[in-house]
Amino acid sequence: MASPVEFWFEFASTYSYPTSQRIADEAKRVGRNVLWRPFLLGPIFKQQGWNDSPFNLYPAKGAYMYRDLERLCRNHDLPWRKPSSFPRNGLLAARVACAALNEPWMPEFARRVYRANFAHDENISKPDVILACLTGVAPDPEAALAAGADAKVCLRKHTERAVELGIFGAPSFLVNGELFWGDDRLAAALAWH
Amino acid sequence: MASPVEFWFEFASTYSYPTSQRIADEAKRVGRNVLWRPFLLGPIFKQQGWNDSPFNLYPAKGAYMYRDLERLCRNHDLPWRKPSSFPRNGLLAARVACAALNEPWMPEFARRVYRANFAHDENISKPDVILACLTGVAPDPEAALAAGADAKVCLRKHTERAVELGIFGAPSFLVNGELFWGDDRLAAALAWH
Repeated sequence: MASPVEFWFEFASTYSYPTSQRIADEAKRVGRNVLWRPFLLGPIFKQQGWNDSPFNLYPAKGAYMYRDLERLCRNHDLPWRKPSSFPRNGLLAARVACAALNEPWMPEFARRVYRANFAHDENISKPDVILACLTGVAPDPEAALAAGADAKVCLRKHTERAVELGIFGAPSFLVNGELFWGDDRLAAALAWH
Repeated sequence: MASPVEFWFEFASTYSYPTSQRIADEAKRVGRNVLWRPFLLGPIFKQQGWNDSPFNLYPAKGAYMYRDLERLCRNHDLPWRKPSSFPRNGLLAARVACAALNEPWMPEFARRVYRANFAHDENISKPDVILACLTGVAPDPEAALAAGADAKVCLRKHTERAVELGIFGAPSFLVNGELFWGDDRLAAALAWH
């Protein structure tokens, strides 16, 4: 089997949404496993001097991104609703994902969180929204949510590792030590040997 | 014939280089004309508070861009040499292109300037480099170079128009009022109706 692709994602990231919905299927098609790697962009943006998403700091870029996402989601047949608040704090969701890193249901949980944020305009920083994303997915949703509280160190380590890898945005992909950035690089990442 | 695609380019822009070398052929294949639209990113970056290329301001992004360009150019079978100075001042080249906006040889001149910058590591801010790019392309290279000096207003208007269109980076494409940004959106722009 070809080497796995590491999928580095941040739950607040708009462009990570279409990637999250299709990476498992597309990787399977080329015989690759996906290693899901939640991290936080906030601390990385802060190191660059940004206290907000660049899509808010640079309005022309932000306006373009929303239109681009509409087009992308239409092309991929994915529902899209512009979130009424952006960026939403993905800390809780990322910790829950970190705590469930080795659970077979984690990717489905992550896909649901992305749909909550970008298809249903739900506030993913709220425990009840995260609990709803876990329900029917994790065997014990309450326990999975509670486990997130203990995953601070894991998430911090992921974010530190992202910086070491030269990651500056999401989604990013790592294949055989090669870094790719952006939803539009998914195919190139999956084809890398 | 399908409506034309406006190709908004800045000579300092790394990602505009692979676009510049193939847009004419790819547009022809789908029966579209290309309208070449030189502009300057510097004033737009300044409005965003940047006094340098974001690839210099944000080193992780810059390091990734150089690697990504290597891969892209290999995929498109284009020569690539990391420029020893970046970004190079494309003001003179952009003025010459503006002055030659309606000349059939302008696209070939522009392609040569990009190759000078990103395949041959030449300093495109120098008149002799621009003259070499005009030689064998423009019927009267000296006159074409001199005409650039009178194209200040044209270039300023292009840059103002770019801002009005919501352009914040290069390459950008405009098709039927729809904006696309990035070399990786060329195919989407050419397919837009």
